[in-house]
Amino acid sequence: MNKEINIVLIGAGKMATQLGKVLSASGLRINQVYNRSIAAAKHLAQILACNYTDQAEAIDLNADVYIVCVSDQAIASVSAQFAFLDQRGKLIVHTSGATPGKVFATHFDRYGVFYPLQSLSTEQEVDFQLIPICLDAKRPQDLALLQTIAQGISQEVYAINDQDRKLLHVAAVFVNNFSNHLYTLMDQWLTEEQLPFELLRPLIQMTAQKLTTQSPASAQTGPAIRGDLATIERHLAVLSEKKPDLLPLYQWMTNSINPNLLPH
Amino acid sequence: MNKEINIVLIGAGKMATQLGKVLSASGLRINQVYNRSIAAAKHLAQILACNYTDQAEAIDLNADVYIVCVSDQAIASVSAQFAFLDQRGKLIVHTSGATPGKVFATHFDRYGVFYPLQSLSTEQEVDFQLIPICLDAKRPQDLALLQTIAQGISQEVYAINDQDRKLLHVAAVFVNNFSNHLYTLMDQWLTEEQLPFELLRPLIQMTAQKLTTQSPASAQTGPAIRGDLATIERHLAVLSEKKPDLLPLYQWMTNSINPNLLPH
Repeated sequence: MNKEINIVLIGAGKMATQLGKVLSASGLRINQVYNRSIAAAKHLAQILACNYTDQAEAIDLNADVYIVCVSDQAIASVSAQFAFLDQRGKLIVHTSGATPGKVFATHFDRYGVFYPLQSLSTEQEVDFQLIPICLDAKRPQDLALLQTIAQGISQEVYAINDQDRKLLHVAAVFVNNFSNHLYTLMDQWLTEEQLPFELLRPLIQMTAQKLTTQSPASAQTGPAIRGDLATIERHLAVLSEKKPDLLPLYQWMTNSINPNLLPH
Repeated sequence: MNKEINIVLIGAGKMATQLGKVLSASGLRINQVYNRSIAAAKHLAQILACNYTDQAEAIDLNADVYIVCVSDQAIASVSAQFAFLDQRGKLIVHTSGATPGKVFATHFDRYGVFYPLQSLSTEQEVDFQLIPICLDAKRPQDLALLQTIAQGISQEVYAINDQDRKLLHVAAVFVNNFSNHLYTLMDQWLTEEQLPFELLRPLIQMTAQKLTTQSPASAQTGPAIRGDLATIERHLAVLSEKKPDLLPLYQWMTNSINPNLLPH
């Protein structure tokens, strides 16, 4: 389809592993894995059947893109070690939703972002084809190169600038971390009351499932949207007795779903 | 499998329709649909190929169970019209999570609850086999009859008393209504910022999907659980600028996921 694209992965954690596998499966060439711990570098390199190193000076110089897959806090310091790649005109990108591309600007002229909008908590294999990849690059030609790479692994490729990506990262926290925390709170409560959390699992699946065919606003149900104050008052009584810590959350949500329903 | 069980549905709304269809498909006999509006009664009766009426006096007297599928507020007044069924020793149940079985106690000796723990927002067909049915009855023999009926339509049948069902109903609001509202809030925000909500859909599906194989606590990700205060502060700055209304929710959730992370 296009001339071979060569990639070096900087990092060997969950993101590097998942990305390395799908990039490799899409026909791209992973030249090398760099990681400060040689064991992790070796482990991932074996999976990807490629070179590995823990020495910045030994980094492969023939790649088209260097993908930095390290924690947000480490991106600046790790990439600074590879500043010499800039003299060779190399493109460097990171995979962070919360970090601006400009984190590279002190050392690099060609830089960008390759952010898969997902949640990497588990070893569970995810279907990358469905994961939106948010791309950004200082130079338009580099964005085109990143698009070629991303389209090989996902059907959902978007150009998203730093500002919008930052906002999306916050939104991802709401829909992923916060909804999961709602499930955790209810799991804890039901367990305390010796009720099986299994009772709620189908409802959780259905809630998400509905959104494949409708907007969340149209899928909203429950006493707040119905204006069913009698039920809400019974719920507040249950919470006051059993889980007073959750009262502020219940009230905030109810108010947000249907303002002016609850007395202030 | 067992002698034929005859059912009358009181109500012709979403719950009566869904329940009528699956009960009928499971081989039970729906004798009649009662509804105060004859048009709705007729419509559902045609789907179920059964009798219908809008006159309480004309209710079929040969059913084993009378299932009241009306709004929570109407259960007491609607069922009072059928008090004469008690003289014939009939069993009456409702389908509400938030209403105690005792709502029937003034008029009925045999009463119970047949509560499918789900969210009935849409015309979307749901797979009832996966929906937990929470049963309760004053008399043990009636609970057994309800179990026979419920097992015909679902693999997940539980005996749940009024107290526990009330709690489950609150928990359902958290995992269904509140998580859906989180999606709505983000849909609104992204739309305001001219970003497609589509970007978040795969993440919503993945978040729910994970829970089929792990506990929500083990599935938790994000800056709060990582103790990543730098990212949290960047998020608070984005919200302060763009969506200050959401700051209290972000702070409450972050504190609840990882207490003592944010200054008080």
